[in-house]
Amino acid sequence: MQQHAALADIGVIGLGVMGKNLALNIVDNGYRVAAFDLDQAKVEAAVSQAATEVPGRAQVLVGCNNITELLASLSKPRLLLLSVPAGSPVDGVCDALLQAGIEADDIVIDTGNSLWTDTVARERHYQGKLVFFSSAVSGGEVGARFGPSLMPSGSEAAWQRLAPIWRAIAAKVDPQTGLPLVRLEPGNPVREGEPCAAYIGPAGAGHYVKMVHNGIEYADMQLICEAYQLLSQVLGLSATEVADIFQRWNQGKLNSYLMEISAEVLRQQDPLSGKPLVEMILDKAGQKGTGLWTAVSSLQVGCPAPTIAEAVYARALSNQKPLRQTLATRLKGAELMGQVEAEAFIADLEQALYCAKICCYTQGFQLMAMHAKEQGWTLDFRAIASIWRAGCIIRATFLQSIMSAFEAEPQLSNLLLDERFASALNQSQQAWRRLVSGAVLAGVPAPCITSALAYYDGYRCETLPANLLQGQRDYFGAHSFERTDTPAGEKYHLNWSSPKRELVKL
Amino acid sequence: MQQHAALADIGVIGLGVMGKNLALNIVDNGYRVAAFDLDQAKVEAAVSQAATEVPGRAQVLVGCNNITELLASLSKPRLLLLSVPAGSPVDGVCDALLQAGIEADDIVIDTGNSLWTDTVARERHYQGKLVFFSSAVSGGEVGARFGPSLMPSGSEAAWQRLAPIWRAIAAKVDPQTGLPLVRLEPGNPVREGEPCAAYIGPAGAGHYVKMVHNGIEYADMQLICEAYQLLSQVLGLSATEVADIFQRWNQGKLNSYLMEISAEVLRQQDPLSGKPLVEMILDKAGQKGTGLWTAVSSLQVGCPAPTIAEAVYARALSNQKPLRQTLATRLKGAELMGQVEAEAFIADLEQALYCAKICCYTQGFQLMAMHAKEQGWTLDFRAIASIWRAGCIIRATFLQSIMSAFEAEPQLSNLLLDERFASALNQSQQAWRRLVSGAVLAGVPAPCITSALAYYDGYRCETLPANLLQGQRDYFGAHSFERTDTPAGEKYHLNWSSPKRELVKL
Repeated sequence: MQQHAALADIGVIGLGVMGKNLALNIVDNGYRVAAFDLDQAKVEAAVSQAATEVPGRAQVLVGCNNITELLASLSKPRLLLLSVPAGSPVDGVCDALLQAGIEADDIVIDTGNSLWTDTVARERHYQGKLVFFSSAVSGGEVGARFGPSLMPSGSEAAWQRLAPIWRAIAAKVDPQTGLPLVRLEPGNPVREGEPCAAYIGPAGAGHYVKMVHNGIEYADMQLICEAYQLLSQVLGLSATEVADIFQRWNQGKLNSYLMEISAEVLRQQDPLSGKPLVEMILDKAGQKGTGLWTAVSSLQVGCPAPTIAEAVYARALSNQKPLRQTLATRLKGAELMGQVEAEAFIADLEQALYCAKICCYTQGFQLMAMHAKEQGWTLDFRAIASIWRAGCIIRATFLQSIMSAFEAEPQLSNLLLDERFASALNQSQQAWRRLVSGAVLAGVPAPCITSALAYYDGYRCETLPANLLQGQRDYFGAHSFERTDTPAGEKYHLNWSSPKRELVKL
Repeated sequence: MQQHAALADIGVIGLGVMGKNLALNIVDNGYRVAAFDLDQAKVEAAVSQAATEVPGRAQVLVGCNNITELLASLSKPRLLLLSVPAGSPVDGVCDALLQAGIEADDIVIDTGNSLWTDTVARERHYQGKLVFFSSAVSGGEVGARFGPSLMPSGSEAAWQRLAPIWRAIAAKVDPQTGLPLVRLEPGNPVREGEPCAAYIGPAGAGHYVKMVHNGIEYADMQLICEAYQLLSQVLGLSATEVADIFQRWNQGKLNSYLMEISAEVLRQQDPLSGKPLVEMILDKAGQKGTGLWTAVSSLQVGCPAPTIAEAVYARALSNQKPLRQTLATRLKGAELMGQVEAEAFIADLEQALYCAKICCYTQGFQLMAMHAKEQGWTLDFRAIASIWRAGCIIRATFLQSIMSAFEAEPQLSNLLLDERFASALNQSQQAWRRLVSGAVLAGVPAPCITSALAYYDGYRCETLPANLLQGQRDYFGAHSFERTDTPAGEKYHLNWSSPKRELVKL
């Protein structure tokens, strides 16, 4: 593929922690990288880190002083990886590339956390000037360095050009066990295994799928936090005791990277106070928008995703600390909780968490399906589950089960239809109910675990009280209704304000 | 104000049910109206209805054949009321008015269900060409005819011009009792009482406030529907029996227009089958977007509004009937519900509904406050509660309590801070918990009642498990955290991947 020995295979623009680590990962995999950042100190740091970590291959990472130099260092058609903050910086760099003489068949890959609609607009905007491609990257800094989960989308021809590099640097999964094959060693990447990189679809699809990944991540994190609060407040357990429970759960069906690191965080001692670190961390959660966008999309698409929305609200609520401090002194809690048997409570909580987790992933996958239908995208849900098994934040053996569900039924509209998930829920639903009832009676909020149960019970209803709702709407707004005994689409209105209340077929 | 006896005071464009009824209401109040619709049949219908309903005042409603004729019929500066579907039709009419020679100081009032950001954009877009003003209208067709709740916003000078008409046609409230003064008689409008029309703020503010009104309305309707489902499924009551209970509740603190009409809907016999009509209405709820927009705004502003979001999701879920029908046969329900004592259950449900209702209005008012702060609007929340006491769908004596809360503390950030609401919740929270626990154990979904309780319990938490969440985020993404023992704003990061795990102050 290389046209000239001295030319690099790919350019990297933006050498923050993500850009630098992606560059080093690419270098590890035998490619030559030319790198640029507006901050020359970052260029030098990346170059020297490459020299240290991959000493056998001098000049594999070439630092550039400006964009013109960067373009001159690359074989054509060029591949340029952008790792800059989402939003206007992406446009700024593209415009600078155009000024510096980038060519129409050169490929620019946005790897930031862009809003998917921006990606769609950019592909259109730059058409004929450069090939705007995008690839969402999950896995944080460690993932970027040693194997991320990659969700590329856009032109299929561009993907063909990028694919070898993307498959090389991606996280790998053991095809037998479904478990990540991790090696956190510079210069020695994992080469075997199934790569966590799959072409997702047309422009924007990759970032949309990554956005939903993050929405699921929000909910999964919040579910674990609710378990922590319940164990602390209902059973009075210490951070270390909760860590022990989480570590045990991590050996079972709740196994996940998030469960693993939650146990680690809870076990961590604060270097300053000597207390558990978690008790010294302020309970105000930050967010960068992707969870919020997922919840917004679910509302717009008409896909119930209350567990994801509750996770977003939980972060918002955490930021209203002064209000909570005031209300905590004024509003009464529960006095109803009876005697709690600790072991039974913990066992119920494990089941409840698993059920809620199934519902949260069900919401995310259904959202992708409904949105893809609207957009005319054909998504491969099995592949999406597959590339989330390693490299990304929600990696878990659980994804293997989701993969199996889509293997059995590639266009499954809702995971609750899968026999294994249905049977898992049927087995655990009583424990889930006991747990939610207990939390409610104890006065401990568990919005995600609770909303997931209402979600589950909602889908169990052949008939919902939306019939009364349609009656209300017809009464005050003449919005009309369909009947159960006439063909679908036939609309009726009752003349509520007339004494005879005639039924009118519209 | 009238420059010429033959000229009309206001023009109405769009004579659908809302436009026609607003025109007739204006005529009833002694103003002369010129009216136009692209459909001449609608013009004729409006003219003849005015002749029948206000026979003493011939030609009070003048039909026009086109927009040029309409403009010629109005005194200057002109007042033009638009009642056309939200979206591009509004722009279409404005552009037609410009072509027909509307002048820069003429005022165009959009009364449709426009998205508030569209209103802001339109005011800017038409600046210097016409005065684009807007007024949200609540109350459906009956409200439009005999007294709606009106939420105008935009230029204050335009409001001065419109105010006399708007105050005349608005619903009226008895200042002593806070109850609506209603008279459903053509030609005989209510003239006494406090009018439900108040200037809300700059362009878009009125439509934003109306949007939140509708979000609250969604949640309030869904709460009543959940009560209906619980009474039907847990106690096995008939539609008529539920109607009796609702009618009784409507005499107490749950008094509201929505409760009143719900009882009526439940009591209504189906003219075709002879069964209760509600049982013949298909349980698929429609929506027009305002509830969804409210939930989206709450996510964007960072204001927890789970009860409103759940109401939107409930409508979405209702539309997935085939999926529900399949899952109903596969997913197991509860086997835990013990013996239920009907009277106690009904009493608990009444308390629970009231508590959830307080939380749902709290969410709506906090959302308006947080959004207004972002926009730099100064909203008069007392006035907003006041104009919702009559004419609109959520009218209820309850609004009088909200008014009192803002009278005591005009910029109250959250209604739970009000002593009366706090005390009501403290009195009823145990009943609420019993009810939610019962619903969960019975397997009947009550997403709004349940999410409201988690909302309440969330605000009762001085400390939330967001500390663990910040630990997780710092672990996988180096997102940093604040500490409880250092000044606000100071950020820390633990070097999780190093063996020594140093704490770094950023």
